Amino acid sequence: MRMVDLIEKKRDGKELSQEEINFIIEGYTNGNIPDYQMSAFQMAVFFQGMTPSETANFTMAIVKSGEQVDLSAIEGIKVDKHSTGGVGDTTTLVLAPLVAAVGVPVAKMSGRGLGHTGGTIDKLESIKGFHTEISQQEFYDLVNKNKVAVIGQSGNLTPADKKIYGLRDVTATVNSIPLIASSIMSKKIAAGADAIVLDVKVGAGAFMKNLEDAKALAETMVGIGKSLGRKTMAVISDMNQPLGFAIGNALEVKEAIDTLQGHGPKDLHELSLTLGSQMVCLAGKADTPETARAMLEEVIANGKALEKFKVFLAAQGGDASVVDQPEKLPTAKYTLDVEAKADGTVSEIVADSIGTAAMILGAGRATKESTIDLSVGLVLHKKIGDKVKKGEPIATIHSNHDENEEVIQRIYDSYTIEEGHVERPTLIYDVIK
Amino acid sequence: MRMVDLIEKKRDGKELSQEEINFIIEGYTNGNIPDYQMSAFQMAVFFQGMTPSETANFTMAIVKSGEQVDLSAIEGIKVDKHSTGGVGDTTTLVLAPLVAAVGVPVAKMSGRGLGHTGGTIDKLESIKGFHTEISQQEFYDLVNKNKVAVIGQSGNLTPADKKIYGLRDVTATVNSIPLIASSIMSKKIAAGADAIVLDVKVGAGAFMKNLEDAKALAETMVGIGKSLGRKTMAVISDMNQPLGFAIGNALEVKEAIDTLQGHGPKDLHELSLTLGSQMVCLAGKADTPETARAMLEEVIANGKALEKFKVFLAAQGGDASVVDQPEKLPTAKYTLDVEAKADGTVSEIVADSIGTAAMILGAGRATKESTIDLSVGLVLHKKIGDKVKKGEPIATIHSNHDENEEVIQRIYDSYTIEEGHVERPTLIYDVIK
Repeated sequence: MRMVDLIEKKRDGKELSQEEINFIIEGYTNGNIPDYQMSAFQMAVFFQGMTPSETANFTMAIVKSGEQVDLSAIEGIKVDKHSTGGVGDTTTLVLAPLVAAVGVPVAKMSGRGLGHTGGTIDKLESIKGFHTEISQQEFYDLVNKNKVAVIGQSGNLTPADKKIYGLRDVTATVNSIPLIASSIMSKKIAAGADAIVLDVKVGAGAFMKNLEDAKALAETMVGIGKSLGRKTMAVISDMNQPLGFAIGNALEVKEAIDTLQGHGPKDLHELSLTLGSQMVCLAGKADTPETARAMLEEVIANGKALEKFKVFLAAQGGDASVVDQPEKLPTAKYTLDVEAKADGTVSEIVADSIGTAAMILGAGRATKESTIDLSVGLVLHKKIGDKVKKGEPIATIHSNHDENEEVIQRIYDSYTIEEGHVERPTLIYDVIK
Repeated sequence: MRMVDLIEKKRDGKELSQEEINFIIEGYTNGNIPDYQMSAFQMAVFFQGMTPSETANFTMAIVKSGEQVDLSAIEGIKVDKHSTGGVGDTTTLVLAPLVAAVGVPVAKMSGRGLGHTGGTIDKLESIKGFHTEISQQEFYDLVNKNKVAVIGQSGNLTPADKKIYGLRDVTATVNSIPLIASSIMSKKIAAGADAIVLDVKVGAGAFMKNLEDAKALAETMVGIGKSLGRKTMAVISDMNQPLGFAIGNALEVKEAIDTLQGHGPKDLHELSLTLGSQMVCLAGKADTPETARAMLEEVIANGKALEKFKVFLAAQGGDASVVDQPEKLPTAKYTLDVEAKADGTVSEIVADSIGTAAMILGAGRATKESTIDLSVGLVLHKKIGDKVKKGEPIATIHSNHDENEEVIQRIYDSYTIEEGHVERPTLIYDVIK
């Protein structure tokens, strides 16, 4: 078998066999296939796509390129959730204790990563003492006991994906649905989940800018999951503006606590319940999303979700008292309101730009070497469709610098305030099973 | 400027500026742009094509990547001819003395190369004493004096093309019309021609399998030439069977002599006159192809073309007496007729396979290290449309081995002989100006 012939086959729109796809991924991982052939192949995939069967085989070949986590020591159906990324997405912090509170085992492996804010582990480290350096056995035991635990990513999972992604990034082949889908799904499958709930974001602040692309990505990922024997479903949710109000690490922990108490931002609350209901169903704890939702609403109302959060934090060394006293979370030296310059209605919030403002404050990492300031970030007060009066704060900056002109300007530039009525954007566009 | 952005621009079907194209070619030539970005770019070009302006800029950037030959010391309009390649193409050997005989300066730079038979220089070396190791000044002087000389390719011409071609070959991006056209035209332009006549072959034995692709390639190349200030035109000619009868080095020299004497194979004679007429016109020696053709027919009839060939050979050390005594050319030890197995009419000759048979005999180079046997090759006796009787020779093998079973079998496999009438293929499909 020669790589050049396989590139040509894909270039000409023909379907590659499982054996051919394994040859490509194995050869690329072990260095027998050079970058210049892989990049030509990926560009051919960009134009010709991959069939469902090719995409599933491609995903599985990536999974097999490295270690696979075995979660069989954990009782029950392990459901993982993945979001395709946006700004101010606090759902993981809410969902982990929320679904655990109704008996769904949440065995969360998480990383730090780059972005506007830190990863789940960074956010949780806002809580004094909390740590994820636990052994694999401790991790299993904690999930079995409490139904929820978080561990740092370790092991050599999906090395082919890392290599492929690095190459796509510099060859303009990031934006290919089968390549995006196989990258995401290979990581989830290698991480050992039995079932996967996907939150595919769509809109100006998301990677998928329009509903058609978001649906195609969701369908492709659900197709891969099913082909590879994982119960999989996807929710398509809005990212035309940041989710919730908070963008920052400690600020999002506080927002998650609010949401677990039932008084979080409407959109974060609604999305958490939607995703959570699907997780509960896939875990076999409820027959319908409606039943599942009622169960989740109940554990919010009776305090069991919040209690579960405390147990989870304490089990990993965290000071659970912050849940009742969120003022114990790291706080920034300065807070500064950004005030509306005119009366009107918010018609646009450029999510990316808001995210970058948070990163400028120090909430996220621009490079692997950056250090995160857990205390800083933004809290929005107005979302699309909200009425604003001149002088009313639209957002509050939490900063450790006394000079915040760039951030203030960015917030003004991100907000559009118009006269008249503006519709609030739809939050949930579709559910793909 | 970042290469990844330019790949994306091309991927999305947008037009690159001259500055952007220069950045790509310069960066790739000097190693700042890695192979994996160039291969992704080329695959994007495969799918999106290039506009006429991009293609011309791409060609000129390749020309500028290396040295350019300055032929200004030679009087008159220097016309070069290029064929896109096929089997048994002896036109260069015929055309050089033929058009020189009517006063068109032929300053031919040639190589050895890989293929079914040798390059023009290899073929001419069948003539005892002939050599192309002459100085640049001698070359100019010879063309000024005799109107024709051949020199081996030297100097670092179009290094970008060599690097790009090597990459295309292993990434399934050879088959892209703008990339093929810019590769050919960059070499012709760097070699200093004022005017270029292109012979674009079409058919089973050519790189372009159908007329539509051949026309597109011809139009693209003519467009490039004109954009870059070179008079350029293209003839689209048939390569559904080998051209002429001979495939081999000395054998083709003999066939060229026959043709210069007016009794060569019909198709080689006709194509040489067609291409030659265009060369004479572009050189400004005639106003119409018809006038030019009459001039060429005259120098064949009155022996001046043949005389020019002798002068040319002698001027570069060759034994010109071979022209009158072709038996002095190298001859193979064995000649062997391949006889028709049944009566009928030739309906197909697989040109590629006939070419490979000649290469197996030793007429061509499979790798740069191969040595060529100038004496060996094939002479066909029957072409498409010819009637054949059982036992009549369809081809003669000239070999230095006593074991020729593989070659015999290949010839039988290449020929299809059917009952009934078969049309002879068209020779000249189109002329693109």
